[in-house]
Amino acid sequence: MTTPQFKEFRRAYGFDEVAIVPGDITLNPDQANIDFKIESFTFSIPIMAAAMDAVTDVSFARLFGKLGGLAVLNLDGVQARYNNPQEILAEIARSPDDEVTSLLQKVYSQPIKENLIGERIQSTKEAGVICAVSTAPASAKHFAPMAAEAGADIFVVQSTVTTAQHTSKSYRGLIFEELRRSTPMPIIVGNCVSYSACLELMRTGISGVLVGVGPGAACTTRQVIGVGVPQVTAVMDCAAARDSYQRESGRYVPIIADGGMRNGGDLCKAFASGADAVMLGSILAQAEEAPGHGYHWGMSHPHATLPRGTRIRVGTTGTLEQILFGPTSTTDGSQNLVGSLRTALGVCGAVNIQQMQRAEMVIAPAITTEGKSWQLSQP
Amino acid sequence: MTTPQFKEFRRAYGFDEVAIVPGDITLNPDQANIDFKIESFTFSIPIMAAAMDAVTDVSFARLFGKLGGLAVLNLDGVQARYNNPQEILAEIARSPDDEVTSLLQKVYSQPIKENLIGERIQSTKEAGVICAVSTAPASAKHFAPMAAEAGADIFVVQSTVTTAQHTSKSYRGLIFEELRRSTPMPIIVGNCVSYSACLELMRTGISGVLVGVGPGAACTTRQVIGVGVPQVTAVMDCAAARDSYQRESGRYVPIIADGGMRNGGDLCKAFASGADAVMLGSILAQAEEAPGHGYHWGMSHPHATLPRGTRIRVGTTGTLEQILFGPTSTTDGSQNLVGSLRTALGVCGAVNIQQMQRAEMVIAPAITTEGKSWQLSQP
Amino acid sequence: MTTPQFKEFRRAYGFDEVAIVPGDITLNPDQANIDFKIESFTFSIPIMAAAMDAVTDVSFARLFGKLGGLAVLNLDGVQARYNNPQEILAEIARSPDDEVTSLLQKVYSQPIKENLIGERIQSTKEAGVICAVSTAPASAKHFAPMAAEAGADIFVVQSTVTTAQHTSKSYRGLIFEELRRSTPMPIIVGNCVSYSACLELMRTGISGVLVGVGPGAACTTRQVIGVGVPQVTAVMDCAAARDSYQRESGRYVPIIADGGMRNGGDLCKAFASGADAVMLGSILAQAEEAPGHGYHWGMSHPHATLPRGTRIRVGTTGTLEQILFGPTSTTDGSQNLVGSLRTALGVCGAVNIQQMQRAEMVIAPAITTEGKSWQLSQP
Amino acid sequence: MTTPQFKEFRRAYGFDEVAIVPGDITLNPDQANIDFKIESFTFSIPIMAAAMDAVTDVSFARLFGKLGGLAVLNLDGVQARYNNPQEILAEIARSPDDEVTSLLQKVYSQPIKENLIGERIQSTKEAGVICAVSTAPASAKHFAPMAAEAGADIFVVQSTVTTAQHTSKSYRGLIFEELRRSTPMPIIVGNCVSYSACLELMRTGISGVLVGVGPGAACTTRQVIGVGVPQVTAVMDCAAARDSYQRESGRYVPIIADGGMRNGGDLCKAFASGADAVMLGSILAQAEEAPGHGYHWGMSHPHATLPRGTRIRVGTTGTLEQILFGPTSTTDGSQNLVGSLRTALGVCGAVNIQQMQRAEMVIAPAITTEGKSWQLSQP
Repeated sequence: MTTPQFKEFRRAYGFDEVAIVPGDITLNPDQANIDFKIESFTFSIPIMAAAMDAVTDVSFARLFGKLGGLAVLNLDGVQARYNNPQEILAEIARSPDDEVTSLLQKVYSQPIKENLIGERIQSTKEAGVICAVSTAPASAKHFAPMAAEAGADIFVVQSTVTTAQHTSKSYRGLIFEELRRSTPMPIIVGNCVSYSACLELMRTGISGVLVGVGPGAACTTRQVIGVGVPQVTAVMDCAAARDSYQRESGRYVPIIADGGMRNGGDLCKAFASGADAVMLGSILAQAEEAPGHGYHWGMSHPHATLPRGTRIRVGTTGTLEQILFGPTSTTDGSQNLVGSLRTALGVCGAVNIQQMQRAEMVIAPAITTEGKSWQLSQP
Repeated sequence: MTTPQFKEFRRAYGFDEVAIVPGDITLNPDQANIDFKIESFTFSIPIMAAAMDAVTDVSFARLFGKLGGLAVLNLDGVQARYNNPQEILAEIARSPDDEVTSLLQKVYSQPIKENLIGERIQSTKEAGVICAVSTAPASAKHFAPMAAEAGADIFVVQSTVTTAQHTSKSYRGLIFEELRRSTPMPIIVGNCVSYSACLELMRTGISGVLVGVGPGAACTTRQVIGVGVPQVTAVMDCAAARDSYQRESGRYVPIIADGGMRNGGDLCKAFASGADAVMLGSILAQAEEAPGHGYHWGMSHPHATLPRGTRIRVGTTGTLEQILFGPTSTTDGSQNLVGSLRTALGVCGAVNIQQMQRAEMVIAPAITTEGKSWQLSQP
Repeated sequence: MTTPQFKEFRRAYGFDEVAIVPGDITLNPDQANIDFKIESFTFSIPIMAAAMDAVTDVSFARLFGKLGGLAVLNLDGVQARYNNPQEILAEIARSPDDEVTSLLQKVYSQPIKENLIGERIQSTKEAGVICAVSTAPASAKHFAPMAAEAGADIFVVQSTVTTAQHTSKSYRGLIFEELRRSTPMPIIVGNCVSYSACLELMRTGISGVLVGVGPGAACTTRQVIGVGVPQVTAVMDCAAARDSYQRESGRYVPIIADGGMRNGGDLCKAFASGADAVMLGSILAQAEEAPGHGYHWGMSHPHATLPRGTRIRVGTTGTLEQILFGPTSTTDGSQNLVGSLRTALGVCGAVNIQQMQRAEMVIAPAITTEGKSWQLSQP
Repeated sequence: MTTPQFKEFRRAYGFDEVAIVPGDITLNPDQANIDFKIESFTFSIPIMAAAMDAVTDVSFARLFGKLGGLAVLNLDGVQARYNNPQEILAEIARSPDDEVTSLLQKVYSQPIKENLIGERIQSTKEAGVICAVSTAPASAKHFAPMAAEAGADIFVVQSTVTTAQHTSKSYRGLIFEELRRSTPMPIIVGNCVSYSACLELMRTGISGVLVGVGPGAACTTRQVIGVGVPQVTAVMDCAAARDSYQRESGRYVPIIADGGMRNGGDLCKAFASGADAVMLGSILAQAEEAPGHGYHWGMSHPHATLPRGTRIRVGTTGTLEQILFGPTSTTDGSQNLVGSLRTALGVCGAVNIQQMQRAEMVIAPAITTEGKSWQLSQP
């Protein structure tokens, strides 16, 4: 008896499993243009700082903006729940491992203070930088007008998985077309990982898509609900959606790889997979200026009944400027991310991000295995 | 010279190697229907407790039934061999690692006391729950009438590998058609892993099939006899058999994934692979109410001449209710299994288990590798 | 520019990567016939003991023969170089790790005492068992008449890689046709791993082929010279050669899987890959009766200028009878190998080794990964 | 919706993933011819010593040449920056791990003393050996005349990735046709990894190509910029380019596998992948005569703003002669590399390197996994 196939499945790839092939011509790194655009906004580095409490607070957002990137302030996090979030963040950092999930569940059960939303935005804008804020789909319609009024420039609607159509008994699902018409801010939505889901989101008229479900270091989505797509395949599929959507609509909607990048090499691979920008969490939480005090945790960690993720000790390795631009004496790819990206464009002969998206890649065994092999062959 | 192919073999997949892709629409978790049916019995959660001595005794079966699932009492285990099984179970828990296999061989060489069979069943039924009992094929014809008389509702015939046709010198192989005609109880049979073996079992008229050979944590079948099929492929092949059988007979015989699931993520993947229900061992042995005192061992472990498996220290992590429904502060997927399942259905936009069986999956590198990568890239 | 393919390569598989699928019918293990035949000799278990000094000496060969298998005495080892090999073996066992290779190089540089060849053979034959001896190709023509005269039954010609045609300046390559015509003993030759090399060997008229280059635990051939084929593929390819040769000649030449088997599971997989018998080293070196005192080393270890392999501490785990037939309280597949094999035939419904060779197999992730996953998901 | 493919990628293979299959005929190792030619120069062993400061200084180059190989002196390293490089090398060896990158950055920021270039070359030539020197593309035009005048025989132009065409604002890219016409020395260029890039380099008229980007033990190119190709695939693709170029031009340009080889097995696999020679770093840094004092680091390690790689403690395991020719008592493939290569040619029946390039290979699980399996199955 031959066995009928119950369902098909494709092989998906993560950063550890691919590598970039150098080009046939090369370019000096300083010749590469790495600009990133969302609607009328242009950023000199294609990097966003994650809407996570260990990464972005007001002062971090101001500094990050001045350095050329875009940090996203989370309107559902401690910044909007506490007048004095520093104390809470310090308490989280001091908490022992076996108590931290309970503490986070308690911390995030405090109500949001709506007055703080405006305050945080204004205080970011005072630095003269572009201000982005994020919230979950359920609160998007409620917070968007407040954010716009306070001067926010870009509005991010983000949850573990967000689709163009959501069914719920308790509230009417968010209609992105309506949200978009009701606000002047460009909307970035996420996260999604598949071609069809990404294409449907783009068709609602939004201005950017965050890509990534279950790939991140502070995320155990796959362990808890079995859901997740390795990031290289997720980015490639959503890049295909972006290209399809551009063909059908003439509009270019950038995709932002969010999660799973642990060093400069992963960041470069995200672009080679088709990303227009990346959103970073763990790596930026290592900055001296990050509010997490050397710790990092995901926004699904404090879930009241189904917590996911862990608080990770990432350490504090240098200033934000060093992490982004060097100089550095670390050789593990955790610093001078922009230098890494420019160098990768150089060896691929790519004059800009769009050309980098077309660089050749190979499926290759993980660097971690190779890194260890030397030791293994030693006595 | 070209090399002729001696035999073909397919790639088989385990839970570690696949991941579920979110759907194009999403659903609030509380909208999902997760009912499970065997003939006229309906269960509000699609979870069975394994017929293993570290998992199911009478009080556990009563509690598990009240919480909506179906626990299976093993008629070949300590519950049917000892008037006071608690003492035996405590002795097993106290035994040092290097003596436990001998002890188990001794414990399980004691004869079964047939009077205990009725007692255990009646005592389970007193709680008003559906009562399932299991035995090996060789004793099935002998025990079935006793079990039915005592009020058992469902009869499980289980061994490492059970087929519709078995040849033996010492006894006439069990004919499932005969067994089925001789008893009013629906019969669940297992374990099997292949399309053809599962289809043959269904054709005997039984009411459910247990799927899984060699995938479990407390099982070393593959190390000892080289036999076993990774569980995702086994479930998918048997789901194909279920569909074929339904097309040929009109009858829908559910398949139950048994073994190899270590957390909520694996459980969700079992359904996405085509399962109608899951049977859990190790995870439930962690409940405060489990009879194993924080230990777990398989039923092929005490084999007199070819023992397989190991006693595993699983620990005691919470109440059964927490393990099934939360609330929890653990983030490793070991608690709130029903919450995990509902959330997975939600992000896949599946309104019931049948839709979840059709969710898209990808082949993806193991979560364990990804989980470790962060550390590996740190100094 | 598209890249032309410089060379093709096939994927090869090892024991860790495959698993046996249970059959659609099953059989009681005691119904299975596991006889193994070489020409007119029949053995009741299809297991050979390796021609390695840590495994086979005269008393081990006598015992192994009485238990139904065939042990091979190495005419190039310490048994033929020393009047009192026990002392040498004890010295090897006492040697520290960092001195043992030098010691072995010294031990094996002592000349062979030809008178010992006859003595060892006669002393084995006194027990009434079938006696097999082995030597390297370069000494085969010289030793064969002595071995035959002393009463040896089976003559094994073995080196890391042996082919039907060998070019050398220093001596005329061994012609197997000539050797075969010059001696009444059936000749077993090895090792080889490919279809074509195996077929060419069979065409010389020899009576059995040893299969395996670079798969074994005490062997580092792959690390030192990059050469080796994972054992499942090697056995399958040579099984295809056996079948081709039978079609062209009518003669059935058995193949014996030699090396790489670490437990009962691997042994069962060797048969499911097409083997007629297995030759075991490390597992048998664990017997109380083995001459290696709990250590094991390969015959290419003492090479004067390019030593390969390591001395492995395998420990002493039980009597030879326990290792072959149980009873046992170990659950790691290291004891009751014959029970493992019979059980595997049973769950595959195979009445003999020839049917077992046709059992279905799948490519499956290594058991070692699965075995560890439980721990990995625990706190 | 079916998902369009955003980009294609091929599977690439590293040394750990392949193994060589023995041939159908065999050959005594001493029959094999392993000569290597670059233009009019012939070397009796196909091994180059890397242009790395921990490997090659003048006295090492003299010794290596006398033993039959070709060492490359780096004109951008400490030998050309310091009158007394030994002191600097000793300081690097003494530096703690967490300070060594900064120290290297400082050491390599000292200017090159052009007078030392001639001195080092003359002093190498005095030993009567063939002298090769290397520099980065940016200094190639400047240093080539000095090197030629001082008597250098072969000129190597090397950087992480070198292509036939390079765009830069700050200097006019090196034109290899011009360089070749301006100097009598044969030019070897590297590194490259793809068919098209290698073919373009050969078309410039150069005399040898170094193959390898990101495969080496002292290199973290993949971690920092995501770029790299596993070495087996890189060598195979460049071997295809060599063959294409020979068909179009009649000229045979040898390719030299550079990086990633950790033992004799890897070295043999490089030739079986299509290499004409290998360039070794880490293995040779283990020689008593190597200037690195038991340490090794790559030339991209000291990069001022984007350092890559790590200083590795390789230890000192024997004399250079032992590493190349034995005798040895190590069994890990780190000594008697030439013996390994000859033995591999022998078991493949290859009379020279060109036949070895055509040896059959299989894709096989890593030796490291197999090496560990024995332990894993033990208690």
